[in-house]
Amino acid sequence: MNAMEIGTKLVELCNQGKNHEAMQTLYAEDIVSVEAMSMPNMPAEQRGIAAIMEKGKWWADNNEVHSAKAVGPFPQGDRFIVRFTYETTFKPTGKRQTMDEMALFTVANGKIVREEFFYTA
Amino acid sequence: MNAMEIGTKLVELCNQGKNHEAMQTLYAEDIVSVEAMSMPNMPAEQRGIAAIMEKGKWWADNNEVHSAKAVGPFPQGDRFIVRFTYETTFKPTGKRQTMDEMALFTVANGKIVREEFFYTA
Repeated sequence: MNAMEIGTKLVELCNQGKNHEAMQTLYAEDIVSVEAMSMPNMPAEQRGIAAIMEKGKWWADNNEVHSAKAVGPFPQGDRFIVRFTYETTFKPTGKRQTMDEMALFTVANGKIVREEFFYTA
Repeated sequence: MNAMEIGTKLVELCNQGKNHEAMQTLYAEDIVSVEAMSMPNMPAEQRGIAAIMEKGKWWADNNEVHSAKAVGPFPQGDRFIVRFTYETTFKPTGKRQTMDEMALFTVANGKIVREEFFYTA
């Protein structure tokens, strides 16, 4: 699959709430994930499907998701951008918030090898 | 200015219709601009403020703009993403269309040194 096809599949799965399946089927083993900022127990950059799935699990465990929307993909060459908007409550604080972020994905050999998130705190 | 400050200024100017001023004040002399696809008389990648301003002039001359909206910036490190939505009529064909694209900007030494556009035809 090329970047456009992978992006289309990713957006489809995310809009069905199947983020875990998206990672399992579309991500490369050595995926690199880069956040806009680091957190106390989490570096901004992590590598490998196990670490990235663990990050996803942490996020899912700590956020109640009221709504989630993925818009895109917007492709260029072997990359594509998706806009993600989440309405969540962060369980540890009970704070409800809207998360609006852009994700830049890079594809190689039919798999996503890099995801980079762009947002403000 | 850092990426967030430059992105904020760029979005502000574009939403005021001051795209030319944005290029004049925020772009580096050796700016590189990359489109998602090439056109008959325009390569996908161009370099230098003169060429990029010429491209902007070509676009402005050939499109009647009914509405324009820039959303962002979404920053990460020395880069930021902006979503642009235009409602235009392409003058040569008279065809009215909505353009919805993402732009990824890279900043160095307080200026935008690279713009990359992500979209489908």
